[in-house]
Amino acid sequence: MEIKKGLEDVYVKETEITYIDGELGRLYYRGYSIYDLTEFSNFEETSYLILYGKLPNLSEYEEYVNKLKEERGLCDYLKEFLKNVNKRANPMDVLRTAVSVIGMDSDDTETLDKKIIKLIAKFPNIIAYYSRVRKGLEPVEPDPSLSHAGNFLYMVNGVKPSEDEVKAMDVAMILHIDHEMNASTFASLVVASTLSDLYSSIIAGISALKGPLHGGANYEALKMFKEIGDPDNVEKYILNRLSNKQRIMGFGHRIYKTYDPRARILKNYARLLAEKKGGEIKRLYEIASKVEEIGVKYLGPKGIYPNVDFYSSIVFYALGFEPEFFPTVFASARVVGWIAHIMEYIKDNKIIRPKAYYRGEIGKRYIPIESR
Amino acid sequence: MEIKKGLEDVYVKETEITYIDGELGRLYYRGYSIYDLTEFSNFEETSYLILYGKLPNLSEYEEYVNKLKEERGLCDYLKEFLKNVNKRANPMDVLRTAVSVIGMDSDDTETLDKKIIKLIAKFPNIIAYYSRVRKGLEPVEPDPSLSHAGNFLYMVNGVKPSEDEVKAMDVAMILHIDHEMNASTFASLVVASTLSDLYSSIIAGISALKGPLHGGANYEALKMFKEIGDPDNVEKYILNRLSNKQRIMGFGHRIYKTYDPRARILKNYARLLAEKKGGEIKRLYEIASKVEEIGVKYLGPKGIYPNVDFYSSIVFYALGFEPEFFPTVFASARVVGWIAHIMEYIKDNKIIRPKAYYRGEIGKRYIPIESR
Repeated sequence: MEIKKGLEDVYVKETEITYIDGELGRLYYRGYSIYDLTEFSNFEETSYLILYGKLPNLSEYEEYVNKLKEERGLCDYLKEFLKNVNKRANPMDVLRTAVSVIGMDSDDTETLDKKIIKLIAKFPNIIAYYSRVRKGLEPVEPDPSLSHAGNFLYMVNGVKPSEDEVKAMDVAMILHIDHEMNASTFASLVVASTLSDLYSSIIAGISALKGPLHGGANYEALKMFKEIGDPDNVEKYILNRLSNKQRIMGFGHRIYKTYDPRARILKNYARLLAEKKGGEIKRLYEIASKVEEIGVKYLGPKGIYPNVDFYSSIVFYALGFEPEFFPTVFASARVVGWIAHIMEYIKDNKIIRPKAYYRGEIGKRYIPIESR
Repeated sequence: MEIKKGLEDVYVKETEITYIDGELGRLYYRGYSIYDLTEFSNFEETSYLILYGKLPNLSEYEEYVNKLKEERGLCDYLKEFLKNVNKRANPMDVLRTAVSVIGMDSDDTETLDKKIIKLIAKFPNIIAYYSRVRKGLEPVEPDPSLSHAGNFLYMVNGVKPSEDEVKAMDVAMILHIDHEMNASTFASLVVASTLSDLYSSIIAGISALKGPLHGGANYEALKMFKEIGDPDNVEKYILNRLSNKQRIMGFGHRIYKTYDPRARILKNYARLLAEKKGGEIKRLYEIASKVEEIGVKYLGPKGIYPNVDFYSSIVFYALGFEPEFFPTVFASARVVGWIAHIMEYIKDNKIIRPKAYYRGEIGKRYIPIESR
């Protein structure tokens, strides 16, 4: 009896959404290279592409962008809720709960399209709102003159972002939109396959992404860079971890056996932001570069290279997010991939119900508690 | 390339928790037949067995029961929240949100054991609380003199349950505790495999159980019995559905190719309650018996028989639950199975990350929006 623990190399569906070439280190969304999309597109256009399978024409694009802008706001009830959340709560728990509240208030008259737009539009506002109240700052209302990425940064930081910051945020969000099958996308699919609702499915995605083996890894990477503290400490730190058989955070991926192309692209933006901002960001970038160099020297021959979380951690930090919020930023992009895979799967749905192989005894005799 | 859609017949783990004999129609928890457990045990003892792998001795049992009783209450914040929930909200959405709130307020000092006890103890209170406020009734505080099942019924109905009612509830809960791998248990495992927290994992279970192809089926079964309205209408109704290739709600299971033993046992309690209560319950029971008879005549030869949801719907209804709440009652028992499978899986964890097989083009050329 073969046990497919972890389902490694098990294909659970066909897809036309995303293709990962793990040997060459390439990633395509709907057939378009992420090099092109991060260079020329933005979050709105790429999310449309992922959801609907084609690049929008101008009027489709404008309609989609406007719908997203209209749904950015949060109702008073949710704002009140976010204001009163315990300030030590994990931001992923808060995001999960807020989405659960939104889902609870949705009714049968809400169309699928409306749900999709609401989810994508409101994630940044939920995250920004909690990140502000947690620091004792006034929340910032969305600004309809700003793009999705630009408005996200504005609501988090309370100041209009620079062009470089918006570009870096757009790129980071594009690179997190989808990644074929993965634990959070799969968790969403398992839920959707019971014909449960879209909000419940997305909540399962958030719940899975929270894990340190998944979306929590960017937070772990930054913690590591901070712990190292100085580029001169890197070699000793890394060799020490390797000799203790500990993982290097932000290194390695089940599919990529070479550089994760997302890491390559994000590195450019991490460098750009480090140069512009200097100080702590610059030092962290230098530490990360050194970790990359030493790590690749020892782990590269085993096919272990920096993954998306390695430099995203520096980009997110440079853009004003506190480390505990990194997985929520990941979620604010990945929600698009979850939705796209759900829509693709339920077109020809089959409930996901695997088996467990029983290894115990059967036919034990029940003895009353007094006689045990 | 083989696509394992639905993961039918794929073994995702080994287990020592539950064994289903789908050919003979038998079900064992930790090696004990559910016939013995429903006859001689109760929810508390059986949940201990499932969680910890052995029947408790008297002092272990008493300690466990007392811990559950101590954790039955809800904090004021959660009560306030449940009082203000929109009265049209789906009870599974409310349960999911309430558990998310509890998880959000949990911190690193909370032990795994504490989390387990809290989850199992509080589900009935959340469900009962919302079911009371939804009907405009005063919520009922837990009564420590009552058992888990008895207290659940007391909090829902506001009157002390009879011995028959407590026994029926205990049996129904025992029969819903675990069922090897299934969509909700698997959703919990996918989340837990990222090393996300226990609350997040359980929330994924609730989210999956909500689906009409899973825990929502008991609600669908009762709707069908009500729609039929009279035992004399059954034959025509069923033949009509069959000739239109529609499912008979509460019939059929991917594993059982004969009677689901849970349906056999629940039928006895549905009959008992029908006799005691008469009226609508008796009529619904008669309709269900007739649906069973006609359904088995036509579908039995294809291996399609009544499943757990068929008679649980009548038992839950007779015990005072509104149909929309049935999946939450299912969840209040299944939470034990979710937790047990999570604990078993993460002892030797491997992240659950399958693949999707790409069927699209690659290398499409990006054209600027103005030129599309």
